[in-house]
Amino acid sequence: MPRRPRRAPPGRIEVLRIGHRAGRDPRLTTHLALAARAFGAERLYLHPPDPALADRLARVAQQWGGGFSVEGVRDWRSVLREHPGPVVHLTMYGEPLARVLPRLRRADRLLFVVGGAKVPSDLYARATYNVAVGHQPHSEVAALAVALALLRGLPAPGAWPGARQVIVPEAHGKRVVEAEASE
Amino acid sequence: MPRRPRRAPPGRIEVLRIGHRAGRDPRLTTHLALAARAFGAERLYLHPPDPALADRLARVAQQWGGGFSVEGVRDWRSVLREHPGPVVHLTMYGEPLARVLPRLRRADRLLFVVGGAKVPSDLYARATYNVAVGHQPHSEVAALAVALALLRGLPAPGAWPGARQVIVPEAHGKRVVEAEASE
Repeated sequence: MPRRPRRAPPGRIEVLRIGHRAGRDPRLTTHLALAARAFGAERLYLHPPDPALADRLARVAQQWGGGFSVEGVRDWRSVLREHPGPVVHLTMYGEPLARVLPRLRRADRLLFVVGGAKVPSDLYARATYNVAVGHQPHSEVAALAVALALLRGLPAPGAWPGARQVIVPEAHGKRVVEAEASE
Repeated sequence: MPRRPRRAPPGRIEVLRIGHRAGRDPRLTTHLALAARAFGAERLYLHPPDPALADRLARVAQQWGGGFSVEGVRDWRSVLREHPGPVVHLTMYGEPLARVLPRLRRADRLLFVVGGAKVPSDLYARATYNVAVGHQPHSEVAALAVALALLRGLPAPGAWPGARQVIVPEAHGKRVVEAEASE
């Protein structure tokens, strides 16, 4: 990313997905989890729990490194109550991200919340910030990825801690090598 | 977005989705199309065609304005051949986005290409740029949204041309009004 935030990035970012439907949303929530991991979150709280999805992401983390995990939760409100930092609900009805971003950059810990098809209305009051990544209908995957990328910058190439394999960027091809071989 | 590119945004951005599976990917491709529209693309070429999805997006554009459309294509290679500008294939194997972004900002027209499950290998050679939005497994929805947001900035609040309704940003609630009422 050409223009990185000047401050150090926040210590920890977690994501809570509310209203996942295991039968209907498997690919969409997988994309959400992958985006959360790829752009710097360290955990996805998944409501309701979906062990198969947690296993899929655990296998990704084994291959590609990093400490990301998926934790199923039955009571999402307790995740909000226990979170020791701002809670950022991503919704197209909220305040523009540009307005809120400087405050998010100052937080040590952040919890992003993304809804599924229908969001319980009390979430708007419980969230510290309701934030819109643009005010057009889009996608929770898009909103989360853009918010994290603007907050943290894009991750640089290179193996993540514990990775078995790593991509070597190529202008016209695919190159994946064992993680040790790239050091 | 706090730091906008200094240059004028490029005139036209289009997106080509290759390998859509209408039966399996409806929600994922809908999210991709919504993200393309929300972050400034004006057209999605969808391969293979999916009229139901094109209709869904047409209804979104009727409600929320703007000129976005979905156009089904049977021969995706001809879309690349006929495109009068750089073709940017988003893939985690490519060059870092940060390295390519200045060149993309100078282009008058851009075609972003995103694959589905399997990408035909000749795409890597046919693309002007193969670009990675991070080199970790993520999501074509995430990659496209982040690339467009970094290229164009986030859209400001306000009704799009021809919109019937518009969101009025709220710190803690939902507010949607008729588009004329907001002017």
